[in-house]
Amino acid sequence: MIKIIVDCFGGDKSPEAQIKGGLLALKNIPDVFVIFTGDEKIIKDVLAGEEYDKERIEIVHAPEVIGCDEKPTDVIRLKKESSLMKGIMMLRRDDSISGLVSTGSTGAIVTAATLLIGRLRGVIRPAFCPVLPTMNGGVVGICDSGANVDCKADMLEQFAIMGSEYMKSTYGVEKPRVGLLNIGAEAEKGDDLHKEAYKLLEANENINFCGNMEARELLKGNFDLVVCDGFSGNVLIKSTEGACLEMLKMLKKDIFSKTMYKIGALFMKKMFDKEKEFMNYQNYGGSVLLGTCKVIVKGHGSSNEVAVAKCIEQAYKMETGKMNERVEAITGRE
Amino acid sequence: MIKIIVDCFGGDKSPEAQIKGGLLALKNIPDVFVIFTGDEKIIKDVLAGEEYDKERIEIVHAPEVIGCDEKPTDVIRLKKESSLMKGIMMLRRDDSISGLVSTGSTGAIVTAATLLIGRLRGVIRPAFCPVLPTMNGGVVGICDSGANVDCKADMLEQFAIMGSEYMKSTYGVEKPRVGLLNIGAEAEKGDDLHKEAYKLLEANENINFCGNMEARELLKGNFDLVVCDGFSGNVLIKSTEGACLEMLKMLKKDIFSKTMYKIGALFMKKMFDKEKEFMNYQNYGGSVLLGTCKVIVKGHGSSNEVAVAKCIEQAYKMETGKMNERVEAITGRE
Repeated sequence: MIKIIVDCFGGDKSPEAQIKGGLLALKNIPDVFVIFTGDEKIIKDVLAGEEYDKERIEIVHAPEVIGCDEKPTDVIRLKKESSLMKGIMMLRRDDSISGLVSTGSTGAIVTAATLLIGRLRGVIRPAFCPVLPTMNGGVVGICDSGANVDCKADMLEQFAIMGSEYMKSTYGVEKPRVGLLNIGAEAEKGDDLHKEAYKLLEANENINFCGNMEARELLKGNFDLVVCDGFSGNVLIKSTEGACLEMLKMLKKDIFSKTMYKIGALFMKKMFDKEKEFMNYQNYGGSVLLGTCKVIVKGHGSSNEVAVAKCIEQAYKMETGKMNERVEAITGRE
Repeated sequence: MIKIIVDCFGGDKSPEAQIKGGLLALKNIPDVFVIFTGDEKIIKDVLAGEEYDKERIEIVHAPEVIGCDEKPTDVIRLKKESSLMKGIMMLRRDDSISGLVSTGSTGAIVTAATLLIGRLRGVIRPAFCPVLPTMNGGVVGICDSGANVDCKADMLEQFAIMGSEYMKSTYGVEKPRVGLLNIGAEAEKGDDLHKEAYKLLEANENINFCGNMEARELLKGNFDLVVCDGFSGNVLIKSTEGACLEMLKMLKKDIFSKTMYKIGALFMKKMFDKEKEFMNYQNYGGSVLLGTCKVIVKGHGSSNEVAVAKCIEQAYKMETGKMNERVEAITGRE
């Protein structure tokens, strides 16, 4: 049985999405066990109307709530009875628990996980790795997407190692094609950080390095993993998501502007539904934090139950795919 | 008469697009004079079939061609007879000429302009400022989009000053709303560079600073100018363009996959045409280089004649709007 903690409080649709997402994961994965942390009474109220395998859940009472503006360090110091901190402390103490899924404050999750769960042997800094769908039907991982705004070249090298093992264990990509996010395709492009990172990636035998990737290539599907510093990785994923979202909005607005367009859209309803579904990040789970001793998945703040279930599945696959052991076998040498 | 040089060689559709774009600008703007640089015979051949005001053009023979892989410094040293270098040298010597439009090598243009044309008084580094259309019908400038991969906070402050004056002079935006590209909206987000830049921008009275902007906001139209280091600015614009392009491709592919969708699309043809036109960068001209003593506009390598004419119009507006004088009035103090 793989035990995963679900932090039930934090996120726009909490705690319903978190609890129902947990139950959905129970249905989808036969050997998963879910531990819900949060206000026990509220969790029980939500569970009351649902059917599920009672042998495979546990509720851990955590009455405190984390505010939007609270500093990560304050959360760790002062909110020990919050659903996130209760979960993190259990994960730290109990070796039978594999991971934690949270849709709460990113800063608090990163800080708590790094300080209290600890890093894998040899790992300099944990990094976020969300995935996006590509136009040829696959996905592409982006590592780091914002955990580290200041990076050194050896950190980028490790992002490539961790991200590659993640794409292997969770998405079954045999030999992930790694690209370095840069302002041009040629090896000598970019600032000193990227020139140095290019050399390290090229020389590392644990990575299938395929050269620099320009931002406009992201969705084409020519790379399985993009390595970047957290600042430009954040810009990369947010601008891509933003552009897709704004285009969908424009399309919708335009369709409703004329009767003829509305008629046309009726013929194409299935197609638009498919495209909307394709771009719905809820279907792709959360952003995993790579490099910590236990599996941590950060779901989007607006995650619904499907997204939460996907996050649990990601954590499950990382654990069963022995992703952390594989990373440590590389980073932990010497 | 405003004299603008058009570098006719460089770009996928050169020299036809450059020459015909020049003639189109003559038609659109009554007091523009165009100087074509490049192989005289070829230019005359293209002009032979066209009707235009012969009093408002000049051809300057430049027989050498710049290769794709040539280093910018080699171009300056060795290709003095190329269409770009001939143009740059004329611009340097002749005060009656206002600016230059080129669709050639970005690196060569930046290097030649910086070294041979020189910077405005007080300007630390010139920066690129392309614009993108926003969903509420306006445009947003992005400065710097790639000329400077390593930036200091005072450079970002100047990008805001130059970009603001550009949006005023060329797009008639009265009080450009300036955003700082960052990984979160709060003032304390980002690395040291962005925290320091935030403070400088906030304190500068020449700028209408509206706080940090997350990458996903770019197309919404809440900002008129985004200030960023050249690396993340490059990622921002290329990922946005890339995502829009890939979505259009997906839409097209999906429409052709079923007869019913094709029928629906017939009802919506005008709508799709409008959207394609909206996202066609050819309509928005080139990326201007801000901070040099003369106006320099770098058009996209695949510019057609409409795009080239737009670039000329941009150069014209920057000159007639006295953009450089206005920038120098701020940067040149002391």
